[in-house]
Amino acid sequence: MSSTYHGQLTVSIFGQSHGSAIGVTLDGLPPGEPVDLDTLQTFLNRRAPGQGDWSTPRKEADRPEFLSGLLEGRTCGAPLTAVIRNTNTRSGDYANLKDLPRPGHADYTAQVKYGGFQDSAGGGHFSGRLTAPLCIAGGICRQILARRGIAVGAHIAAIGGVPDTPFDPVHLNETALLAPGEKPFPVTDDSAGTAMQTQIAQAKAAGDSLGGVIECAVLGLPPGLGDPMLDGMENRIARLVFAIPAVKGVEFGAGFQCAALRGSENNDPFCLVDGQVRTKTNHAGGILGGITNGMPLVFRAAVKPTPSIAQAQDSVSLGRREEAQLEIKGRHDPCIVPRAVPCLEAAAALAVYDALLEQEMRRVQA
Amino acid sequence: MSSTYHGQLTVSIFGQSHGSAIGVTLDGLPPGEPVDLDTLQTFLNRRAPGQGDWSTPRKEADRPEFLSGLLEGRTCGAPLTAVIRNTNTRSGDYANLKDLPRPGHADYTAQVKYGGFQDSAGGGHFSGRLTAPLCIAGGICRQILARRGIAVGAHIAAIGGVPDTPFDPVHLNETALLAPGEKPFPVTDDSAGTAMQTQIAQAKAAGDSLGGVIECAVLGLPPGLGDPMLDGMENRIARLVFAIPAVKGVEFGAGFQCAALRGSENNDPFCLVDGQVRTKTNHAGGILGGITNGMPLVFRAAVKPTPSIAQAQDSVSLGRREEAQLEIKGRHDPCIVPRAVPCLEAAAALAVYDALLEQEMRRVQA
Amino acid sequence: MSSTYHGQLTVSIFGQSHGSAIGVTLDGLPPGEPVDLDTLQTFLNRRAPGQGDWSTPRKEADRPEFLSGLLEGRTCGAPLTAVIRNTNTRSGDYANLKDLPRPGHADYTAQVKYGGFQDSAGGGHFSGRLTAPLCIAGGICRQILARRGIAVGAHIAAIGGVPDTPFDPVHLNETALLAPGEKPFPVTDDSAGTAMQTQIAQAKAAGDSLGGVIECAVLGLPPGLGDPMLDGMENRIARLVFAIPAVKGVEFGAGFQCAALRGSENNDPFCLVDGQVRTKTNHAGGILGGITNGMPLVFRAAVKPTPSIAQAQDSVSLGRREEAQLEIKGRHDPCIVPRAVPCLEAAAALAVYDALLEQEMRRVQA
Amino acid sequence: MSSTYHGQLTVSIFGQSHGSAIGVTLDGLPPGEPVDLDTLQTFLNRRAPGQGDWSTPRKEADRPEFLSGLLEGRTCGAPLTAVIRNTNTRSGDYANLKDLPRPGHADYTAQVKYGGFQDSAGGGHFSGRLTAPLCIAGGICRQILARRGIAVGAHIAAIGGVPDTPFDPVHLNETALLAPGEKPFPVTDDSAGTAMQTQIAQAKAAGDSLGGVIECAVLGLPPGLGDPMLDGMENRIARLVFAIPAVKGVEFGAGFQCAALRGSENNDPFCLVDGQVRTKTNHAGGILGGITNGMPLVFRAAVKPTPSIAQAQDSVSLGRREEAQLEIKGRHDPCIVPRAVPCLEAAAALAVYDALLEQEMRRVQA
Repeated sequence: MSSTYHGQLTVSIFGQSHGSAIGVTLDGLPPGEPVDLDTLQTFLNRRAPGQGDWSTPRKEADRPEFLSGLLEGRTCGAPLTAVIRNTNTRSGDYANLKDLPRPGHADYTAQVKYGGFQDSAGGGHFSGRLTAPLCIAGGICRQILARRGIAVGAHIAAIGGVPDTPFDPVHLNETALLAPGEKPFPVTDDSAGTAMQTQIAQAKAAGDSLGGVIECAVLGLPPGLGDPMLDGMENRIARLVFAIPAVKGVEFGAGFQCAALRGSENNDPFCLVDGQVRTKTNHAGGILGGITNGMPLVFRAAVKPTPSIAQAQDSVSLGRREEAQLEIKGRHDPCIVPRAVPCLEAAAALAVYDALLEQEMRRVQA
Repeated sequence: MSSTYHGQLTVSIFGQSHGSAIGVTLDGLPPGEPVDLDTLQTFLNRRAPGQGDWSTPRKEADRPEFLSGLLEGRTCGAPLTAVIRNTNTRSGDYANLKDLPRPGHADYTAQVKYGGFQDSAGGGHFSGRLTAPLCIAGGICRQILARRGIAVGAHIAAIGGVPDTPFDPVHLNETALLAPGEKPFPVTDDSAGTAMQTQIAQAKAAGDSLGGVIECAVLGLPPGLGDPMLDGMENRIARLVFAIPAVKGVEFGAGFQCAALRGSENNDPFCLVDGQVRTKTNHAGGILGGITNGMPLVFRAAVKPTPSIAQAQDSVSLGRREEAQLEIKGRHDPCIVPRAVPCLEAAAALAVYDALLEQEMRRVQA
Repeated sequence: MSSTYHGQLTVSIFGQSHGSAIGVTLDGLPPGEPVDLDTLQTFLNRRAPGQGDWSTPRKEADRPEFLSGLLEGRTCGAPLTAVIRNTNTRSGDYANLKDLPRPGHADYTAQVKYGGFQDSAGGGHFSGRLTAPLCIAGGICRQILARRGIAVGAHIAAIGGVPDTPFDPVHLNETALLAPGEKPFPVTDDSAGTAMQTQIAQAKAAGDSLGGVIECAVLGLPPGLGDPMLDGMENRIARLVFAIPAVKGVEFGAGFQCAALRGSENNDPFCLVDGQVRTKTNHAGGILGGITNGMPLVFRAAVKPTPSIAQAQDSVSLGRREEAQLEIKGRHDPCIVPRAVPCLEAAAALAVYDALLEQEMRRVQA
Repeated sequence: MSSTYHGQLTVSIFGQSHGSAIGVTLDGLPPGEPVDLDTLQTFLNRRAPGQGDWSTPRKEADRPEFLSGLLEGRTCGAPLTAVIRNTNTRSGDYANLKDLPRPGHADYTAQVKYGGFQDSAGGGHFSGRLTAPLCIAGGICRQILARRGIAVGAHIAAIGGVPDTPFDPVHLNETALLAPGEKPFPVTDDSAGTAMQTQIAQAKAAGDSLGGVIECAVLGLPPGLGDPMLDGMENRIARLVFAIPAVKGVEFGAGFQCAALRGSENNDPFCLVDGQVRTKTNHAGGILGGITNGMPLVFRAAVKPTPSIAQAQDSVSLGRREEAQLEIKGRHDPCIVPRAVPCLEAAAALAVYDALLEQEMRRVQA
């Protein structure tokens, strides 16, 4: 399949970058849930381009139209479908991508897979633009979770070798969690943010791009969400996070660092805090055996540098079967990381709400 | 759900560590595929305990009995079910885990989720023992792939800070890929392996444990496998790899390293090699836009240190609601990493064969 | 879930009768398949209202707009989404359905299930109007099947006790199969059709409505489609046919008649015709063990009388908890059967094409 | 896929008639549900052969062994797997079915689909014996439903033209519902049962077989179960009922009869009974818009005559490509209908419990 997530919620994403519209159907939401469109728009704006020197100057409104599923501001039980019209005209910028694929893009693999029938304009269905429908779906879930005391936030953990102050995996509170998302450049430590922006500006000036790491956390989760083996919270979140085109790695809690620890260091001792079972450390990232343990759920994703760069690159003419140079025209983000921050929140919110719905169903009744 | 993977293949894993049996149903295999049981047993033996000082001295035969799906050594189109009897008797070793959960284990989360009705003996359904059925399913797929020229291999990339020589992501050949799996201690560089074993012995002597990193690669893949967004090869592999209980991170190609690279460094330039489209580097790990590009598919997984250690640890009595110390008895692997190597291969083989089947179906016919 | 079919194709239907739009996402079509929009429109017109005295005089254009998935008249591998705008204004006709539910409609069950948050205007997501997106998806599959020599057709088998000449389940040819669909009133025997229309006119004059039976057949099917037990062709078709709101029964081949036959009568003897294995009779409706046997696939569906009738009916005020009379205003089909004929074809085409794709994948390779 | 149902419960059935074992994995049961094995065995015994002159004299114990998912008589949250060993030895009775397929059986379609690799002994995976695992899964759900006040029962509605007294769709009570299942020959009216048995004896004496109709009902259902369009109760039940090999038709409420009614007759007027919303008639079979309305859920299934008959039949030698006669040896049921009664209950119980679990999850919380 192309772009469908089947859990308790079904998320079906459609559209091509330069087609008529992109959109999403979200099926399985309980009826009666309020959806605040202003809050959703604010969330979507965090992903939209044109917010600073670090992103493409293209202006896309990304204003969803709701075709179904909402009535008087609440879910009505029927599938919810929202679309965003593409206002970019189909330019000639992408005319030769089927012949001369861009390094780091899906042009070549799409050509092989779809035999030349794919829509390659603007990257087609592979465009990062398709994360906008993901954010519509995830943004709605994030609102519902917030009403249940569950907060989802993220920040840039590193760009160009400059680290931000990481979330405190044990003592993180909602204010600290959500603060970065309220800034144009979503970091905890603004001086780190300034240094990152300098790095981005330098890369941009060199016709180049930068990658980075994003850290995401979820607070207020009840223990017991997720399932063993194939439907653990790690499996669920990873599956959704890798839907964001540039993500090349995901780790939970101590993640790859835990590979260098001893068990006595990595194990999180249990303790009681105000009568609640907690752990003293949180190398597990709030997940044991695939199931939430009530501690903050923390994960990080590696985001590769934007593959569209201004420098000339080596490619191959598929038609002429000869090596050739490629220069990518058009305006591109020198660093996609800031705009990917809400996408991670959307993926996490979907995974968490899906698990929460499922847990509702199988709670002990006997 | 607990332990079901739904793709073109359905993999349904069942069993508890100290129950009657563990097993797997693998539905969706084409008919007529030979399954060599000796080759499969050799593969399963790589996961079995008792192979060296680094693993638990428990001896479990892990010999599957096939209840269905095979006829005269070939798949017959019906669901294939294999079971492994548990010969361990239900000891009293685990009697108090429901009250005093082990740090780093699923004891506490299982207690919350299942309300005390879970089978906690030996970790129940959360036991690493459940990776044996995963290896049955994946081992069968690995055989089928081998007949189609696709090889799946893995090695220990690091334990205790000691790195093995990584796979060459561009020039890796089948001999180098499969060599580690033929050794008791699956590394490329045996001197690194010796140093790792020393680290493990030291940790064991200290009543402690070690984690590590495993690197897995797939050779011979046709370009075009996988789908955009939610069913990309990264999504599929990640979902299956996180089924291995100790895995806390997964990265593809340059993975988290790509976060520190510039686009001009990370992008893999296309070139022609013997008339075939290839890339000069392979930071993408053989995957662009979720779809294989014909280069080696390379990924790594972080494996946490075995949570069962001999040292006393802090826990909480759930019944008495008071903090308490815990000492874990029994025999445990000081480092699970070597035994997890074939599990990664199994996960990769399942994901790849599933994508290969799907691709068969949607090839261009018009 | 509400309205999603998950097979090799994912069909996700959305929309409410009086919302902004209704539509469908069809994911999983192979790339490069031509979609002829005129042929599709002709197919959709067979379902559209306003075609004769037997249907509602409402005029709805039912012209789909394709938002994604098509490029230059062919599928492009990305999910295909089509929407039909609702041009009916939200009238007050349905204002009191939440309080006073219509007998035979989903008003009461929707009220209970969705707690009053459902969109009840025009029946909301339960409206027969939602079969239009089903026909878009099925109509596209029907075109693809036609290019592979597989024809799907249907006719009214009975209305008001008047039977049409049934399809010959053994000797049916494509001309006879498709002829009814080319007529405004889709029957084989036009004199039967005239008698049916008389029945409908009489019912309409009495402020009443009629049900009927539709017979559908598929020709040109290769043997081997479908799977044992839960994914047999009967299971697949039944699941899709019951998506048509008025259907209350489905039977294959001799169906309920076979309950009165002896085995020696019901069994279809095998024979050779031009060197091909065939059966002399076709009580099985072309399906043995859930799998096509190469004979015409034949099934029938029972369609209940339109529940919206002009006569006063007994209902209950849910708010006042008292019995009350209801008169339904507005224009309604006195008999929905003629318009449901292409819906059955759509359901059959989806089920068959889905099974055909699946069979591609698992053909013997060893 | 072969034999997997994916809902809130995953039911994965495996095994071949003459293989080592048949069985089922049922994943998704809430933890802590008691499973009474004696009650289950009593239920399974209703399906087992050898209970009277109307069934095969083969004796199969059908005693399930539980490999996982149960602990101290309760579900433990892990997948539940049960197997039944096949004690029949692999006889030569079926040696030539691959060449000379039995009319009315899946021998020919299996040969085409699986290319000769299928297990044809005893019908392999297509055997009616595979309904035993379905009854294990459904029997467990039926117990759980009973604890929630929901009763599932069925009876033979007709055999050989002899009708039983149908269930009263409006006033049916639990005693009347469950009474037939407690008899060796499950009918309401024992004189009808005697007449049916006479018919069966006559058919058997003639080397022939009989089909019939089974009626199933569910009492105590809350309104609101099921979903519009593709996941309505009709869709769900039909999909599971057609898993029973001999079923060729299914109808709900008035079913095919409603095709001959007018709307004013078929619509069920709402009324109040003891303050509860009910309908005066129940042509809808308790389902409106796919959703239960609180009335008895009633459906019927058509069961074809056992295809294995003693009379010589026409077939085709697939190897020699010539017509040939076939005589089926062995012992076969002259009428499978009585043994299929609990299978229908199992299918209904699975569908209903699955919908009940799903409804738990999406109840209005806002």
